[in-house]
Amino acid sequence: MAQLPTVEDVARVAGVSRQTVSNVLNSPEIVKSGTRERVESAILQLGYRPHASARRLRTRQSSTIGIRLDPLLNGISGSILDRYLHALTEQAAQRGMRIMLFTATDPVDEIEQYRNLRDGADVDAFVVTATRYEDPRIEWLIRERVPFVAFGRPWGEDLDSPDRLWVDVDGYAGSYDATRHLIGRGLRNIGYLGWPEGSGTGDERRKGWAAAMTEEFGLDDAQLDALTTRTEESVPFARRIVEELFAREHGLDALVCVSDSLALGAMMAVNEAGQKKFPVIGFDNTPVAQAVGLSSVEQQLDQVAAATLELLMGATGRRVLPHGEGAAQTHRLITPKLVVRRSSHLAPAEEIGTEEDAGSTTSGNHNREENQ
Amino acid sequence: MAQLPTVEDVARVAGVSRQTVSNVLNSPEIVKSGTRERVESAILQLGYRPHASARRLRTRQSSTIGIRLDPLLNGISGSILDRYLHALTEQAAQRGMRIMLFTATDPVDEIEQYRNLRDGADVDAFVVTATRYEDPRIEWLIRERVPFVAFGRPWGEDLDSPDRLWVDVDGYAGSYDATRHLIGRGLRNIGYLGWPEGSGTGDERRKGWAAAMTEEFGLDDAQLDALTTRTEESVPFARRIVEELFAREHGLDALVCVSDSLALGAMMAVNEAGQKKFPVIGFDNTPVAQAVGLSSVEQQLDQVAAATLELLMGATGRRVLPHGEGAAQTHRLITPKLVVRRSSHLAPAEEIGTEEDAGSTTSGNHNREENQ
Repeated sequence: MAQLPTVEDVARVAGVSRQTVSNVLNSPEIVKSGTRERVESAILQLGYRPHASARRLRTRQSSTIGIRLDPLLNGISGSILDRYLHALTEQAAQRGMRIMLFTATDPVDEIEQYRNLRDGADVDAFVVTATRYEDPRIEWLIRERVPFVAFGRPWGEDLDSPDRLWVDVDGYAGSYDATRHLIGRGLRNIGYLGWPEGSGTGDERRKGWAAAMTEEFGLDDAQLDALTTRTEESVPFARRIVEELFAREHGLDALVCVSDSLALGAMMAVNEAGQKKFPVIGFDNTPVAQAVGLSSVEQQLDQVAAATLELLMGATGRRVLPHGEGAAQTHRLITPKLVVRRSSHLAPAEEIGTEEDAGSTTSGNHNREENQ
Repeated sequence: MAQLPTVEDVARVAGVSRQTVSNVLNSPEIVKSGTRERVESAILQLGYRPHASARRLRTRQSSTIGIRLDPLLNGISGSILDRYLHALTEQAAQRGMRIMLFTATDPVDEIEQYRNLRDGADVDAFVVTATRYEDPRIEWLIRERVPFVAFGRPWGEDLDSPDRLWVDVDGYAGSYDATRHLIGRGLRNIGYLGWPEGSGTGDERRKGWAAAMTEEFGLDDAQLDALTTRTEESVPFARRIVEELFAREHGLDALVCVSDSLALGAMMAVNEAGQKKFPVIGFDNTPVAQAVGLSSVEQQLDQVAAATLELLMGATGRRVLPHGEGAAQTHRLITPKLVVRRSSHLAPAEEIGTEEDAGSTTSGNHNREENQ
């Protein structure tokens, strides 16, 4: 860095001690006016600016939010957190806040990073992602009363705990809307292509599909299970399993999928089978969904980022609220929106794979809005 | 944040002034040993840790690198900088450095951000992305002698200027290798699907294709132009233009593409035309290339990140070198590597769209290695 004027330089020019300069900056009322004017004149002359570091030390505010950057996944959905990070960085900047990235090898290491960043007053708060059952990171943050917001609801815990701010996307509503959209187009045997049971996110998304199917057609659990196919998050796995499905008497009219990866694999199998009238809907609205004309549920990460900052800083505040204080809400569940592209149309003229510019969206016509 | 012990707390417990505590921390040799022991005992008793902010102020080192987060693009290649950011964050952590994100609306605003972060000692250096001709950001950084590395070569400037550290990916070598790979499979009429002329990156990639074609088949500029098709970065544009190509007497055997987006559009047109023996190769090795089995040139962003840190910090250093000092090299050009998937195979059994697990790679068999 270029050598900037320091407190020492100001002290030398003003002919006072370093402590006096510090007093002029921090407690000017205790400095005699003649001395104060001399110091102020030296500050102006040298172009000295009190450092952010000094201000941080004084105010214990860093105007910085820490977030761990997840290891990069190769899947096409891997970019969701990247898109959230973009939205968060842009919106935080509007509130005078910056984002500090760090990495961690495991939850214990992540807690160690929290501790270092907290002790160093490097950050005012954390955003915690990829939360899990009995998450030790959350427990540490609550115990140490460090401000944080989790992106991801507290699976299996008290959703309304004032100690625990969180924001999440309503996967139930997203799949419900996608299913209703297909029902509205006259389809009946709408299958579900999901992940293996036991993932909080995946199970919640399937529930939305199941609710719409049960409401409309009065299906029971056995019938819902018969319409459900499951596989790991992988394009070729999904492609293979849907190819196998098409090789049998499947009786399906369409597929609602838990992710764009599974939907992309399904689309490939559909195209190969020459089934141009078989709608497929994904989840996450990844860039690849846009590129190949796949209808998909958009998580609205701009809204997730806005909600994160509102929980941390209040509706319009410019600093992080102390842990457990001030937040009018403890959580926000964001309603995603269905982006309709060719893959959910039925007319043969509208082939899968021709992109629409931006897709059209349905309004959330369900009645399951929480805390919005 | 929980209230941590401060310098004031230590001073109170030790019965000394704040300045004395500061002296013990910063210049212990000037403090009488009895006083020093009293202060050290208070530090231990209270669990006081000198703040990173204080350390930063003292050392003028923040152990932080600043990078502007680009606005999010919707294209499937938009994730390249995100993947670079991941690699940079992970490798920086291994050197005890963190990454600070910020946003800017334009170059003037970005310079203002640089100034604030520099003045606040918030960062030790910057990484500058999306460089352009006569980049005012670079000019400012050089003038202010702020350490930085540009990801992107200085188009139209002195490549070897010691003031200007940069790292870039050798797009020429990537397209050259992709073309050689197809020539090695016995193909002759290998077309190029590129962006409109005038983009430094795009023009450089086309040069690599042109060099391989000229070396092997002695083509002249007119023949190269006849094999070149150009369109904006867009999957549907590429699809349309390759559909039009296939509707004519095109005589092409394969396409080397400037990006995965154009290659994906080309693949769609190829599939529709039922041309299962028509290889397509992309550039950037995006997640979608992996998902749909598209051969593509991988930028090796891990190596780009490693080179960035080597230029900033030396081979193994743990702090940023002053501007213009110490870096043994002024730039690094990273050789990308071709990842071969089904889309560049010829056997009809190996259909486009069936993913290989990781793809295989060719070694860089060209003789154009700079500064490696």
